[in-house]
This record gives sequence, structure tokens and C-alpha cells, in this order.
Amino acid sequence: MTVRIEDVQAAAERIAGRVRRTPVIEVAPGLTFKLELLQHTGSFKPRGAFNRLLLAKEAGRLTGQGIVAASGGNAGLAAAYAARELGVPARIFVPVNAPAPKVAKLRTLDADVVQVGNQYAEAYEAALIARDETDALLVHAFDQPEIVAGQGTIGLELLDQVAAFDTVLVAVGGGGLVAGIATALGTRANVIGVEPAEAPDLHRALRNGSPIDGPAGGVAADSLGARRLGNLAFEAATTHSIGSLLVEEDAIIAARRTLWHNHHLAVEHGAATAFAALTSAAYRPSPDEHVVVLICGANTDPTTLI
Amino acid sequence: MTVRIEDVQAAAERIAGRVRRTPVIEVAPGLTFKLELLQHTGSFKPRGAFNRLLLAKEAGRLTGQGIVAASGGNAGLAAAYAARELGVPARIFVPVNAPAPKVAKLRTLDADVVQVGNQYAEAYEAALIARDETDALLVHAFDQPEIVAGQGTIGLELLDQVAAFDTVLVAVGGGGLVAGIATALGTRANVIGVEPAEAPDLHRALRNGSPIDGPAGGVAADSLGARRLGNLAFEAATTHSIGSLLVEEDAIIAARRTLWHNHHLAVEHGAATAFAALTSAAYRPSPDEHVVVLICGANTDPTTLI
Ligand SMILES: Cc1ncc(COP(=O)(O)O)c(C=O)c1O
Ligand SMILES: Cc1ncc(COP(=O)(O)O)c(C=O)c1O
Repeated sequence: MTVRIEDVQAAAERIAGRVRRTPVIEVAPGLTFKLELLQHTGSFKPRGAFNRLLLAKEAGRLTGQGIVAASGGNAGLAAAYAARELGVPARIFVPVNAPAPKVAKLRTLDADVVQVGNQYAEAYEAALIARDETDALLVHAFDQPEIVAGQGTIGLELLDQVAAFDTVLVAVGGGGLVAGIATALGTRANVIGVEPAEAPDLHRALRNGSPIDGPAGGVAADSLGARRLGNLAFEAATTHSIGSLLVEEDAIIAARRTLWHNHHLAVEHGAATAFAALTSAAYRPSPDEHVVVLICGANTDPTTLI
Repeated sequence: MTVRIEDVQAAAERIAGRVRRTPVIEVAPGLTFKLELLQHTGSFKPRGAFNRLLLAKEAGRLTGQGIVAASGGNAGLAAAYAARELGVPARIFVPVNAPAPKVAKLRTLDADVVQVGNQYAEAYEAALIARDETDALLVHAFDQPEIVAGQGTIGLELLDQVAAFDTVLVAVGGGGLVAGIATALGTRANVIGVEPAEAPDLHRALRNGSPIDGPAGGVAADSLGARRLGNLAFEAATTHSIGSLLVEEDAIIAARRTLWHNHHLAVEHGAATAFAALTSAAYRPSPDEHVVVLICGANTDPTTLI
């Protein structure tokens, strides 16, 4: 299955008015941040969630059973938010050890939070069972075409907002985000997926020739800790020659502090990962290159910023 | 002395490339934030500081003696930053009780920090004496024409960035910021100065018929705690019919938390003050009104956000 540019364009029309058009800022000559952390719920995830829910609604597949999702993180928040905005119930499955503040936040979005199992995989199994037992719509965190197309709308906004750019640095978890952006941009810019060395899903899939399970930990695990790259992301990575870079834990932590101290942005570790490729010199732009860094998430404990 | 729109336009050309063009975001229909907290040093103050230093430089009045300023807050940071960028020394006078983190931050900007007296007024006196003893340029926090014109460049950017808006809500300390913006916008929008009820400089000046000393405290005192409105600000307030609103301490604290929890912006209390006029309903826009809120400063302790 392939997501096409037309799917991203249709997504942009579909979700207009539901998501914020997030701003860009040129922080230094040739370096632009896309401030997607200012999106509703504090991450880009509502773009994909709204696209999936609204498409289902158009097709009459969004019923009073609402939606189910498995995620204690940004994908869960976005799914709950989109469901509430569209007036359907959301049941979100999270592991029993999900952090209490995240569970509380899901509840403030009126979600029915079900704590089950010790790992994400068990929560996901429970979500699948709930989907099969009801008419509820499953909202995946990254590996559904509507999700990829929705995240890709960021790429269309960039084409509109930044006069000329060569490269976009994007954090990768399951790869829905980087896949959507690469699909939106096609040959108009280089897209590079940046991952923690501790959670190298894209890197591993590219080396292996297909997505494969593996360890996924480290400081950014709550957002980038998928254990395996999505199939759609792998497809997009090969079609659009998405680049792959790894950054160390220390580099992510330092980049997050720099974003706070020098740029006044409070971000989660996953959202500092792409910038870490620059600050650690894992990526060295050429002198005339214009680089866009996607700043993708704000859901962090601010007491850990200093 | 009056600051004219031409002065603001000249300031915009002069400081281009030195300051960031900060983005806007429409956070809800009819409600736009201007994200000036993303400016260098975390507040709008470099706009005025660069304008003052660069104009002096053009006139040959920026010598090896550099600049002096009195401020332990954002004005001091901005003056030190602008001086460093232009390669001249900065001597910044602060009270002996200035918070250690602020003094440390000034020093990371290579400023020579002189701690003197217990109050801002004493630090200011010391700065005047240093200015008189040397060729150093005094950079005032708000009451110099170049400062007002520099802050006004925010208004010009708004005209460029927001298709149509009716009202701009702006925090007021000594009034340089609100004066500059009102000068830039003229009759094209209503400009309303918002102040803590505990530090009502503009309010007091308007009632009195001229600027007058008075108490200035409360949670936002470190940025909005000038004891008397500037003369230039009073002039602009009467010429351009700047509105005046007061907000209570609780409203400022609540608005700051809302900016963090709902908008993912970590701001100082002074920068939440304008937004507090909306959240506390001190200002009630009419249904079709498009309101811009200036989010003007990020220099806060993030551990106090939650
Ligand atoms: C802040 C943040 N950045 C990046 C990602 C990675 O997105 P994807 O799983 O689509 O690769 C996530 C996923 O949750 C996220 O929350
Ligand atoms: C964050 C912030 N907002 C608003 C103001 C008020 O500016 P003015 O003194 O020009 O009124 C200041 C002044 O220091 C400030 O630092």
C-alpha cells in the first residue's frame, strides 16, 4: 500500500480548521524551525488522527462506538482530542505502568482510559479485541494510510511557508511522520529521519531490507520507542530515499536544553532528537544549505528543563 | 518629543537581520498570538536596544566605551546581547538583590555586571554617573525614542503577518512597548495596554493627566514593575488613544498556566498579563473581533509552570 501526494493534499483539505497551521521561525540564516509543538495537544499527531476520523465519518464508518487506540503518549492524546471534537467516545488502552500524569491528561480529554498489561504490545492487543467486539474505529499510532497522509500535511505547509529549503530533519518513531512529510515533498527537498541510537527503527529496517522488531529505549522512548518501523514508512523510505541518522542520548539531552535556553522552547526529548543531529554534527549542512528542523512535541515535564 | 511612524519604519530597516521576525499563530478563530517570546534573549527588548545602538553607531556615538544600562531583567539582557553582537562592551548596573540566575545570564553575554544599591533607582543613578564619566551610551529600558521605535517594529510585522485584526493586547511596564506598537499601527487597530493592578503605571498616568510615581509590585514586577510610565509612552497613549485595562494577580497566574497547559508556551508572568485580560474577561471582544495578543517574554523558571 502506498500513500500518494494526492492523499496528503486531500488530507490537508479535510483537516483544515481542525488543526492549527503551525508557524515557522528562521532562528539563524539558513536554519528554520517548524513549530509543530504548538499544535493542539502539543504534538503533530492530531493531523493524522483527524484525517482518519473524518475519512471514516465521510464513509459512514464513524459510529456511536467511537474509536479505540493504544497509546499512553501523544498518539493517544491526539486520538482522544479528535474524537471529542467530533463528538464520539474514545477508549484508549495503555499499559498499567503508564505515567499517572499522562493518564490524567487523557481523562481530561474525556477518554475512557483502560489500563492493561505491562507493555505497549498488550495494550495494543486489547485495543484490537475491543475493535473486533464493537464497531469502534481503530486509530493506529503511525501505520495507517490516513495517519501517514495526515502527518504529511506538515510538508505541504512548509512548501507554503518557507521560500526555499533543501533539507528537513524529522524524528522517527514508527515512521508515520517522516513518511508523510517525504510523500508531501517528493523531490522538492531531502528528508532525513533522525532517531536515537537506542531506538533505531528506520535504521534497522533499512539495513535489514524490511521492518524488523528490535529494542527501543532511551530518553525519548515515550515518543520514539516503537519497536518496529511501520510498513507504510518503509515503503515511503525506499520510494522517496529518506535519509537515516542516529544520535546519542547525550546529544538529545543537550539539544533539548539548548532549545530551552537559547530558543525558549520547552520540548520533549523526542522533539529535540532532530535538532540533535545538527548540534552534535551528526548532520553537517553545506554552507548554502537551508535546513528545516521539525520541532514536533511539547509534552514534557518542565521541571526537568534546567 | 514624539516618535513617528517613519521612525518605526526606519528602525525596522536598521535592525533587520539582527532581530528575529517572530511568527504568529492563530490559536482559535479570531485569536492570534504574536510569539515575541522567541526573540533573541527571550523578549522583544533587543528590537529597541539594537535600534538605539545602531543609530548611535551611524552617528559615530558608539565608542570603545560601549554602553551602560540599569536592569536586572529583560532590558539588561537585550542591551548586553546587542552590545556583544556589535562588538562593544556592556556595563549593566543591577541592585545587589538581583536574582543570581539573572546576573549569571548577563555574564554569559559577556556583560560587566555591577551590583549596587537595593533598588532599581540606585542602579539607574549609578548607570547615569558611569555614562557621564565615560563616553558610554546609555540604553534606557523604555523611555528613549530609539527604544520606542524599535519595539514598534512588532506592529509593522503584524500588519504584514495577520490579514485583518481589530485589537492588540499588550503588557505595559514603562510603556515603551505599547507606545511603539500604537505608533506603528496608528488608526489601523485598537491598542490596549494591560497591566497588573499591582503595577498600574499607564492607568495611573492617564488618570493623573501625566506620568506619576507609584507602587509597582506583584508577580510580574520583574518585567512590568517600572514605578512610573515613560514620558514617550504617555505622549503616545494620548496621541493614539491607547486603551488601559488592569488584571488581578490571580488572573495573571492562571493565564500563565493556561499558556503552558493549552498552548505549550512557557512564559514569564509579564508575558501572560495581556492574555489574562481575555481569560479573566477584563476584555470581552465582540463576536466578529479579531484580537492579537502579544506574548512578549520567556524568561521564567520552568519549574514553576506546573
Ligand atoms: C513528539 C513526537 N515526535 C515524533 C514522533 C514519531 O512519530 P512516528 O511514530 O510517526 O515516527 C512521535 C510519536 O509519538 C512523537 O510523539
Ligand atoms: C516580558 C516583558 N513584557 C513587557 C514589558 C514591558 O515593556 P515596557 O517597559 O516597554 O512597557 C517588559 C519590560 O521589561 C518585559 O520584559
